[in-house]
Amino acid sequence: MKIKPHTLSATEAATFIASGQLKSVQLVQSCLDHIAETDGAIHAWAHLDAEAALAQAADCDRHRQSGLATGPLHGLPVGLKDIIDTRDMPTQRGTPIFAGRQTDDDARIVEMLREAGAVIMGKTVTTELAFVHANETRNPHNTHHSPGGSSSGSAAAVAAGHVPLAVGTQTNGSVIRPASFCGTFGFKPTRGTIPRTGVLQTSQSLDQIGTFARTLQDTALLADAISGYDQRDTESFAHARPDMLLGATEDAPVEPDFAWFNLPFNDRLSGAAREGLDGVMDILGARVTRMDPANQLGELVAVQARIHEFEIAQHQADVFDTHWDAISDTLKPIITRARQISRTEYEDALAVKTSAQGFFADFFHEFDAIIAPAAAGEAPRFGDGTGDPICCTLWTLAGLPCVTLPLLVGETGLPIGVQLIGPAHKDDRLLRSARWLQQHIAAAAA
Amino acid sequence: MKIKPHTLSATEAATFIASGQLKSVQLVQSCLDHIAETDGAIHAWAHLDAEAALAQAADCDRHRQSGLATGPLHGLPVGLKDIIDTRDMPTQRGTPIFAGRQTDDDARIVEMLREAGAVIMGKTVTTELAFVHANETRNPHNTHHSPGGSSSGSAAAVAAGHVPLAVGTQTNGSVIRPASFCGTFGFKPTRGTIPRTGVLQTSQSLDQIGTFARTLQDTALLADAISGYDQRDTESFAHARPDMLLGATEDAPVEPDFAWFNLPFNDRLSGAAREGLDGVMDILGARVTRMDPANQLGELVAVQARIHEFEIAQHQADVFDTHWDAISDTLKPIITRARQISRTEYEDALAVKTSAQGFFADFFHEFDAIIAPAAAGEAPRFGDGTGDPICCTLWTLAGLPCVTLPLLVGETGLPIGVQLIGPAHKDDRLLRSARWLQQHIAAAAA
Repeated sequence: MKIKPHTLSATEAATFIASGQLKSVQLVQSCLDHIAETDGAIHAWAHLDAEAALAQAADCDRHRQSGLATGPLHGLPVGLKDIIDTRDMPTQRGTPIFAGRQTDDDARIVEMLREAGAVIMGKTVTTELAFVHANETRNPHNTHHSPGGSSSGSAAAVAAGHVPLAVGTQTNGSVIRPASFCGTFGFKPTRGTIPRTGVLQTSQSLDQIGTFARTLQDTALLADAISGYDQRDTESFAHARPDMLLGATEDAPVEPDFAWFNLPFNDRLSGAAREGLDGVMDILGARVTRMDPANQLGELVAVQARIHEFEIAQHQADVFDTHWDAISDTLKPIITRARQISRTEYEDALAVKTSAQGFFADFFHEFDAIIAPAAAGEAPRFGDGTGDPICCTLWTLAGLPCVTLPLLVGETGLPIGVQLIGPAHKDDRLLRSARWLQQHIAAAAA
Repeated sequence: MKIKPHTLSATEAATFIASGQLKSVQLVQSCLDHIAETDGAIHAWAHLDAEAALAQAADCDRHRQSGLATGPLHGLPVGLKDIIDTRDMPTQRGTPIFAGRQTDDDARIVEMLREAGAVIMGKTVTTELAFVHANETRNPHNTHHSPGGSSSGSAAAVAAGHVPLAVGTQTNGSVIRPASFCGTFGFKPTRGTIPRTGVLQTSQSLDQIGTFARTLQDTALLADAISGYDQRDTESFAHARPDMLLGATEDAPVEPDFAWFNLPFNDRLSGAAREGLDGVMDILGARVTRMDPANQLGELVAVQARIHEFEIAQHQADVFDTHWDAISDTLKPIITRARQISRTEYEDALAVKTSAQGFFADFFHEFDAIIAPAAAGEAPRFGDGTGDPICCTLWTLAGLPCVTLPLLVGETGLPIGVQLIGPAHKDDRLLRSARWLQQHIAAAAA
């Protein structure tokens, strides 16, 4: 084929592989070549072993030729945030403390990816312990800018065309924000949909897994493949997951109704972000309702921070106790502060989180989705941090499914995402609304 | 509805539940009533908690009414052989040694059943440690007879209409044989298809999980729901499973070709079993090829026994060491003998097993399935053991997928199954052949 395989979406590549027009080895080789050409400037990869990836791809090709059953990701390369354990690659968690760390087991989602036929391409760079301190990854759209964090490398690798699919995690805004900064689609399903066994625990109550891809459909394809119940994960639920791929590919039965919240921190939005969102709202017209939320919504930001900080200080106490000198100066003051949070303050914060979930459970009787910025604006300059997660905090805290669509462009030409947030456990409905929005905006622009 | 819900197949019940014509609570109540009426004579259940089952069913009904996603077994009661761990019911393994044994975790397949929406109905009686010594279960067709073993209660419960679906295990012939004796369908997929984490280990190399139901389609529905890769299971494989339900419900593209082996132990077949099989073979005509296998095939029976006995003595050494007095007089001499098997003899047996797998890998290039008896005849009288597993031994040893269809009737009116064995990892193809056979025999009989 004349198209370079690494430019294909996952769905396109899967179709070509299934029909025999493309070998997984060709796809993976094309991705590896493109990585070799471009990653010197981007630094999306923490661990990459070309031979091992090609060997997996060759296995996939042999498997298909033998007429055996193939999974939904057969032969497709997937990047994994470097906090997701793999038994055949190190998982270094964005810190020299864990340099060369090798586990015996795969994370549960890695087992699921292998069963689905994916090629585990390598590990993508994360911030230090998936928190605030950036590592070396640059934004593929402009390498003077950050890709966001903490799923920095996953967003950058997908945006750069290194892989069609990547997995990340979000405790505050670490899937939706880097996807917005890098101009990819990003999707974080309902809390508990994707199991976290074998993934670095930064906050048992808040950590959630999400997906990156260059199409909406692909984010759902990957999310379906790694969704399932796992009793070892305290947030995992023991009932069926919605068919997310179906949601992302079928038409909404009626035009969806959107809500927009005038949130106190909307004044942090950049001019271009605000103008872009106003343009989207104009196109939506009567389909969107602008609302002044109760003041409590704004207060949830502090609640998220209290839970997140208290829990990471607890879960990773051994790391902080043993390796304090190797912790960045960005993270140290946060952990020092976190250690001052009392158990009562923490438990109060958990109670507020529970009531926020209750508020949103009722809210979606009237609306299909909340529309919101995915980030306050374009990606910050490299060296100025990984950007403000404020546009994601409430929804992550409430465990709601979120998706970002790369619809806007900022002042300097960098992408900005539009975020949709849906009702818990109705991820398919959220994706239908997102598909409708994407088509509706495209039609209006035409 | 005038039909008693417990008489429905799983597929029928699922359809009625999905359309709102039947509640899971009605189905489970009907099953419980029928169990209460009949289990006094059958003793299929080792643990049954009516309130807990109804509570799960009510949860399923509420879940469906809320419009949330439902799994393929939504609201359907499933019986579990009492060697499969459940965190909310005891798992007693057919021996007083483990009376009241309660685990903290569910077996992996129980997690999968919960995600699929199943109601975990209870635990079905197994033989002592899933081996040779029978417990109290009777054959529902004639309670003077054995249901077979070791999945005695699973076969009996399905045959008696207590539940539409049940799970069992087979190390030699413990799914196919009791299904044959009880007149149900029984299906044991390719070794490694269904994960065994949380299931009593009697033989790491040979233990395999299978399903019981009153239709071929239902055996596949259940098998699909509990199939998947699990790195904790040494035999589990990291690639996609075939779509078994599709195999059981779609027409074979061409008429399948069957092979029949003139095996040395065929002289153990009862007159009715032999005549019934001859009748089936006559109907198949040129579609079946009778073959004289290499003598080595007969020798595999001793190989299976050596591996099985050596491994159970090793895996359960603690039980035998600590509770020898509580072990039955049926099992004691086998364990005593097993302890005399040397590691060299065991390793030689494993090597023969590997070569048998290689033989069958080539064999199925020419044939779609092997046709064979599922058991040597009717169920033995209660008290005369659980029957001869000889008709299953070779296929279990080789890890091949096997299915039994209740097509024949014995001298005293008890059922006898016809077994089909297919190529490894092509379980869907085996089920297509089984569907073809069932339809072809029905058409010939009409």
